[in-house]
This record gives sequence, C-alpha cells and structure tokens, in this order.
Amino acid sequence: MNTYSSRLLEQCVNELSRLPGIGRKTALRLALHLLKQEDGIVENLTAAISEMKGSIHYCKVCNNLSDGEICQICSNPKRDQSVVCVVSDIRDILAIEKTAQYSGVYHVLNGIISPIDGIGPDDLNIEALIERIVNGDIREVIFALSSTIEGDTTSFYIFKKISDKDIRVSTIARGISVGDELEYADEVTLGRSIMNRMPYESGLK
Amino acid sequence: MNTYSSRLLEQCVNELSRLPGIGRKTALRLALHLLKQEDGIVENLTAAISEMKGSIHYCKVCNNLSDGEICQICSNPKRDQSVVCVVSDIRDILAIEKTAQYSGVYHVLNGIISPIDGIGPDDLNIEALIERIVNGDIREVIFALSSTIEGDTTSFYIFKKISDKDIRVSTIARGISVGDELEYADEVTLGRSIMNRMPYESGLK
Repeated sequence: MNTYSSRLLEQCVNELSRLPGIGRKTALRLALHLLKQEDGIVENLTAAISEMKGSIHYCKVCNNLSDGEICQICSNPKRDQSVVCVVSDIRDILAIEKTAQYSGVYHVLNGIISPIDGIGPDDLNIEALIERIVNGDIREVIFALSSTIEGDTTSFYIFKKISDKDIRVSTIARGISVGDELEYADEVTLGRSIMNRMPYESGLK
Repeated sequence: MNTYSSRLLEQCVNELSRLPGIGRKTALRLALHLLKQEDGIVENLTAAISEMKGSIHYCKVCNNLSDGEICQICSNPKRDQSVVCVVSDIRDILAIEKTAQYSGVYHVLNGIISPIDGIGPDDLNIEALIERIVNGDIREVIFALSSTIEGDTTSFYIFKKISDKDIRVSTIARGISVGDELEYADEVTLGRSIMNRMPYESGLK
C-alpha cells in the first residue's frame, strides 16, 4: 500500500490502526483530524497517554488502577472495607460505581477462568483475594462476574476455596432488566427470575 | 464524573474522547488497551503522532500532505504534470490513487464553497490553482468534487475563472455504480445516467 504521499502519515496511520476497533480508514480520519488541530491539543493527547502509561499503578490491595500505591476506593475511610465485590475487569468497577449503590470495596481478578482460552486460576488475581479473606477482616464477598459458564466456574472455584471461612458469600441478582418486556427476555433469564422470585415491595409508599 | 479511580486514567480518557467518533466508553476501552500493551508499542504510537504533527509538510504545489516541500506525486517525473485533478480533500487523493487509473497530478482545495458553513472561495486553496493554470503548462483540469450543490458551485466558480484559458475542463463521470441494481438507484442519478449515456463498448473482446 504505497498510496500515502507521506511516510509520516503512513506511520501514524499504521500505529493508530493497531488500536482495537480502529481500522485503517478510521485511523486515517483520526490522523488527518490531528493534523488539523492546534499543536497544544495534540501534545495534550500524547502527554496524557505517556503519563498514564508511565506513572499509573495497580492498587496493592484490590488491583484497581490507581495514581498511588493504594487506590482511592481502598483508601477511602467511608467505604466499608469488610465487604468485597469480586469483578473480572476494571471496567466493572466503573459500571458499579456509576450506580452509586455500593459502598464496599472491590477485588479485580483480571479475567475469568476460561480453559478454552488457556486461562486457569493461576493466571488470575485469585490468590491475593484468598489472602485478603484469610488475613483481613472480611465480612462478605459478593461475586459480580458475568453470568456465563466461565463466570460461574470462577465464582464456584473461589467459593470452594473460602467456604470454610465464616463469611457471607453472595452474588449479584440476575433477572429481567428494569424496563424490559417479558416477551423478549431469553428463556434462561426468565426461568431463573421466576425460580429466584423476590418478596413484593410496592414502590408507592 | 468522579467514577475513575485514577486521575491519570481520567485525563487520558478525556483526551482520547476529543477525537472524532470516539465517545467516553470507546476512549476508556482504548486507554485500558494501551495500559495492557508493552511500553514500546505505546511509545511508537505517541512518537508517530508527535513526529507527524511536528514534521509533516503541505506540498507547495498541490497542497497534498508531504514529507518534503514537494510531494511524491508532484515530484514524480512519470506523472503527467499537465493534467490536474481538483479534489476537496486529501482523502480523495488516496481514493483516486487506489484505483491506479490516474497518472496526472492533483490540487487539494481543502474544502468546497459552502455559504451555509461560511466557507467562501477565499477560504479555499483556489487562488493557487488559478495561478498554476495561468503560469504553468496545464493541458487539462478535471473536477473530482462531490456531486452536491456545494460541489457543483465550486466547480462552476473555478470554471468561470479559467474559462478564457485554452485548456480542457472535465469532470469525473456520474452514473450508476458498478454492480448496483437499477431499481435501488436514486432518481437523480438514474435520470442523469440516461441523459449522459455513453457509446456501448463490449467488454468481451
């Protein structure tokens, strides 16, 4: 592909198109957009990437992204340090934090057990979780993993490891999404939502 | 939005989400992807952007992107310097070059006349084109602008300026796309393709 008139442009397009979900056409559009911007804006972008890459830490407690050694959530005295929510990915923390319904802390596994992808328990951040539970003052562990065979396997693996401890183990509720029509819900979800039905509470008080 | 546990991550997401077509969710995905990559890969990306931004030139002849003062196309002795294809954007050059059907040179206007967006002839690279035609040895000008009112206005504006010169002025052919079904073609295109019908040439020789 020697269609680019500039080697500098081509190099930039090559690098941008390595990013996930960005093909060569989008990469070209981004490169041409950057060329039109003022120098300062482009410098801000490259500096933000370099700084993040160079200086970011993983929290020593929960493995969340952090500016310091311990993340803002683990070091926050207002959070309940005795309730640990187990997630597979940092993005899950962001999603749960957005709900503003959870005041405990987290533990990031960095993936889930998936033999088909060659990911076993030792590839994940599970040992540190067990240690936290054994050594720490943990009252409850909440599994917030995806509702797949891999997610269930991971939850079960961890449950077996900690079942002799005197702590509460729970999992986030599964059911029909708020606002969803029953007729379009998948059978498994609908079936489980009937099996796991909850006491009725009127929202109109 | 104080949901990010890291200011460095937040800054990087902010900067990435300024890019066109990249929202905050995609920006976060890109940032987390970059964090997982080796340092060298991320350095290559930021270096490629900075180098491009710092060192790229616009060709003094045609306004195409170039590593030097004159672009690879304008300085190529194999290209016919007497045929100039007028395009609105650098991306149009890449599209035409990909066809490998054109051996002339280009002139990039950097937009088209669009009063609604406040873009007049003086905002575009038109004066340089007129100069090229007056001073240079130009035999033919080909308009390859989009088939819109703005594109047609721009072609007409330039045509009026050069109509007293003894050169051929043409425009790229409009018609039904190769492989398209007639029934789905829009009326205007189909109407014009009948008006501007071409002598039949059998592809089977």
